Amino acid sequence: MKVRALYEALFALEDVRQVLRETTPDHTLTEQQRTVVLKALERVREALTVLEEWKSGDAPPIQSAPGIVARSAEEEYVSVQPIQRGGVLPPEARKTLTAYCDGYSVCDYCLPPFRLDRIRRPNLMEFHRELAEFLGMDEARLFPGARRCFQAVMSSLVKPGDTVLVDSLSHYTVYLAAEQAGARVVEVPNTGYPEYRIDPEAYGEKADEVERETGKPPVLAVLSHVDYKVGNLHDAKRVSETLKDREIPLLLNCAYTAGVMPVNGRELGADFLAASGHKSFASPAPSGILAVREEWADRVFRESRFREGKEVELLGCTLMGGVAVAMMASLPHVKERVERWPEEVEKARWLVSELERIGRSKQLGVKPKQHTLICMEFPDFHEVSKKHKRRGYFLYEELRRRGVFGLQPGLTLHVKLNTYGLNWRQVRHVAGAFKDVAEKYRIPVS
Amino acid sequence: MKVRALYEALFALEDVRQVLRETTPDHTLTEQQRTVVLKALERVREALTVLEEWKSGDAPPIQSAPGIVARSAEEEYVSVQPIQRGGVLPPEARKTLTAYCDGYSVCDYCLPPFRLDRIRRPNLMEFHRELAEFLGMDEARLFPGARRCFQAVMSSLVKPGDTVLVDSLSHYTVYLAAEQAGARVVEVPNTGYPEYRIDPEAYGEKADEVERETGKPPVLAVLSHVDYKVGNLHDAKRVSETLKDREIPLLLNCAYTAGVMPVNGRELGADFLAASGHKSFASPAPSGILAVREEWADRVFRESRFREGKEVELLGCTLMGGVAVAMMASLPHVKERVERWPEEVEKARWLVSELERIGRSKQLGVKPKQHTLICMEFPDFHEVSKKHKRRGYFLYEELRRRGVFGLQPGLTLHVKLNTYGLNWRQVRHVAGAFKDVAEKYRIPVS
Repeated sequence: MKVRALYEALFALEDVRQVLRETTPDHTLTEQQRTVVLKALERVREALTVLEEWKSGDAPPIQSAPGIVARSAEEEYVSVQPIQRGGVLPPEARKTLTAYCDGYSVCDYCLPPFRLDRIRRPNLMEFHRELAEFLGMDEARLFPGARRCFQAVMSSLVKPGDTVLVDSLSHYTVYLAAEQAGARVVEVPNTGYPEYRIDPEAYGEKADEVERETGKPPVLAVLSHVDYKVGNLHDAKRVSETLKDREIPLLLNCAYTAGVMPVNGRELGADFLAASGHKSFASPAPSGILAVREEWADRVFRESRFREGKEVELLGCTLMGGVAVAMMASLPHVKERVERWPEEVEKARWLVSELERIGRSKQLGVKPKQHTLICMEFPDFHEVSKKHKRRGYFLYEELRRRGVFGLQPGLTLHVKLNTYGLNWRQVRHVAGAFKDVAEKYRIPVS
Repeated sequence: MKVRALYEALFALEDVRQVLRETTPDHTLTEQQRTVVLKALERVREALTVLEEWKSGDAPPIQSAPGIVARSAEEEYVSVQPIQRGGVLPPEARKTLTAYCDGYSVCDYCLPPFRLDRIRRPNLMEFHRELAEFLGMDEARLFPGARRCFQAVMSSLVKPGDTVLVDSLSHYTVYLAAEQAGARVVEVPNTGYPEYRIDPEAYGEKADEVERETGKPPVLAVLSHVDYKVGNLHDAKRVSETLKDREIPLLLNCAYTAGVMPVNGRELGADFLAASGHKSFASPAPSGILAVREEWADRVFRESRFREGKEVELLGCTLMGGVAVAMMASLPHVKERVERWPEEVEKARWLVSELERIGRSKQLGVKPKQHTLICMEFPDFHEVSKKHKRRGYFLYEELRRRGVFGLQPGLTLHVKLNTYGLNWRQVRHVAGAFKDVAEKYRIPVS
C-alpha cells in the first residue's frame, strides 16, 4: 500500500511536469491544463496521507504505463538477486536519472570537439578523470556495458586467427566479443567442483602451449577478477606477473568488483580494466567503464581517419543521456561504499554460516568467501523439489512469500545469491526466511 | 520556482523510497527512519503549496546530486535543440524509467534462454515483435544507439578492404562503424549548397565505378533517410531500386525518421533499418533498434558458436534495464504520434516562413520542408555577431533570455533547429522570440 502510494505520488508529479513542458516559458495554463494540475496534486495529497500514516495492507499493483507494472522488487522485498545488488541506484542517482531522463539530456552544453568526455556541464570531463584515478588506471571511457569494453579491446588488438586466453569461468560475453573479433579462444582451466580455483601459473603454461602449437603467443589474456559462477576472487596480480614475463597484455574483467570493492588496476597489473555500471557501479543499464594504461590508450582509443577527435571503438559518443550522468551522481556513493567492503564480506560470510546450518548444505567456491556473490549447494531443498507439486519453483515461491526475492526460479540444488548493500537487519531476515522454509519441509537446521 | 518545487517533491519522495528500500519487508521503521520519512513528506507538502498556487518567480536551481544541477531545459524553456526533440520522453516513459531505474531491472523474470527479446515480464518479447511490425520489417533487436546498429551490420557483412557506399551527408558514426570494420568508404555526392540533394541514380553510378575500379561491387550501401545537416528527406525507395538491380543491400539510417514519421522499411526497400531511441523514439539514451528483413536475419543475428542462443553482434543482451522498458512504454505514444506527422511538418514550414521574414534569411535544403529538422541561414544575425561583444554567442543568449533553448552556442550564420513535438503556442513563441531579437538589432522583419 505504501509502495503504491509512493508511486502514485511520483507518477502524479510527472503529470504536473508534463503540463510544465507543454506551456510556453511563462507557464500560463489553459483551463484544461489547470484542471490536470489540480487533479494531479490532489492525487499526491492522497498518497501523502497514506505515507504519513505509514499504512500497511495490500493494494493492487500500479502501472507505470499501460501493460507495464511498476517494479517494486527493491521496495517490497529483500532482494538477493545475484547479478543485481551492485547495480541498485542510490537516491542521488535516481534523482539525477529523473532530472536527465530525456534522450540527449547531457548534450545541452556539448561544444567542440563534441565529445562526451569533454562535456563540462554536467562535468563529465572531470568525471572521466576521476574514474581513471579511482580505478588506478590512466584513461577511462564510458561504454554501454562491460561487454562493449571487451569488444573495444578485442577489436583493437585481435586479428582473425589470433589467440585469446580466457579463464574457464569467463562470462559468455567475453567469448562473444572474442568470436566477433575472429579470435581463437583458449581456456585456462579451473579446479572444478567444489572450489573452482584458477591457478595463476596456468596462464603461463597455456600461453606457452599456444605459442608451441601455433608459433605465436596469445595476443591478449582475459581474467574474471571475480567470476559469475561461484564468486571466487581470482589472483589478478599473480596472473598479470605471469603474463608480463611473456609480454601478453591482461584485460581484467571487473564487472563484479570495480565499484563494490577497492580495485586498483595498476597494482593488479591490468593493462585494460572493464567495469560494469549496472552490475557493480550503482548505475542504470546499459553502462560500463573501460579504463586503460597509458601505453595502450592510443591504440584502443585511437581517433578516426574520417572525423577528427572521434574515437573509433567508441563510435564517437557512447552514453548520451541520463545513464551517463546517473553514473556520475553515483560516484561519490561508490567511492564511499568500497571502503566498507570488509563489512560487506562479513555479512556474506555470516549468511553462508547460517545457510550451512540447513541440512547438508554447503557453500561452493573458495572458503571463506572473499566476495558477496554466493553459490550454495542445497541437497535437501533439491530432495524436496523432486516430490513437490511446484517442483523446483517451490523454493523461489516459499522465499518470496517470506519477502525474499531474486533466486533463479526453478533452481534448488545450486542457488546463487548476493548480499551486497543489504543491511544487517535485511541479511538476518534472509537467513530467517531460508531456515523457516527448511523447517516447514522438516529439513534439520542445526 | 514551480520547476524547483516539482523537483523538490520528486526528490523528497525518492528519499522516502530509499527508506522503503532499507527496511525489511514489513517496513518497520527505526526512530531515525521515521524522522527521515516525516521530514521528506513535509518537504513534499511545502512543494505542493507552491504548485497549487502556481507561483511565479525565480528560485535558485536545485541539485539532483552534489555538483549536478537538475536539468530543466524542457520545463523552463521551449527547446528547439535540433537533435533532441524526438527523444523527449512522454510521461509514461518517465514513470517507467523511475520504476525501473536500477541496473538490471528488467531481468527479474529472465528465464531460459536468458535473452532480452524473450523476457515476458515486462513483455519485451511482444515489444520486439511489435517493433518489427511497426517498422515494416521482419525481425528487430534493441541496441545501445543507431551507431551500434551500423556496427552490427558492417561487422556482419564487411570484410577488411570491402567497399561501403555512403551518402555524403552521412552521420559521422556511419564512417566510424565502417572504419572499425576495415571498410573502404566511397561517398555518393550531393548537390551542395543550398539544396544538398542526393540523386538516387548516383548510387548506381558510384557502385558501377567501384566495381570497375576494384573488380568488386560495394558489399553494402548506406543512406540517411533524413540527413543531419539540412534535414532533407531522401528518396530511399529509388535508391533501393537502383541497388536492387545490382544486388547491393541497403542499410537505411532512420535515426531522424523512424519514431517521428511513418516509416515502412519493406515499402522503402530497406534490407536493414537502423533507428535511434534517443533521437526519434521518445526514449532515454543509449537506445536504438536494428530491424532487418528475413533473408538477412540469420547473418546479422547469427548465434554464437560458444553459447547457444546468444547472438554475437548483440554481445548477448543489449539494453538490460530501464532504457529498454522505457522504450516499450513509449511505443504506444510513438505509434500515435507518427500519424500526426503532417501537422508536425506544417508547424515546421510555418516557422520557416516566419523566420524567412527576418532580413535576408533563408532555409537551406529542399523546399518546402518535409521534415521538422530545419537549417536556417541568417546573414543578418551573422553581421551583428561580428560587432557584438558576445560575438556569435549573442543569438543563443538573446533567445535564451526569451525562453528559447537549444541553438548551438556561438553559431549565427547557419543555425539548426527542430520543432518536433512542440505545440502551436510554443512554435509561435519561438517565431516571436527570433523576430524580437531581430528587431532589437534593427534587422528588418517583413
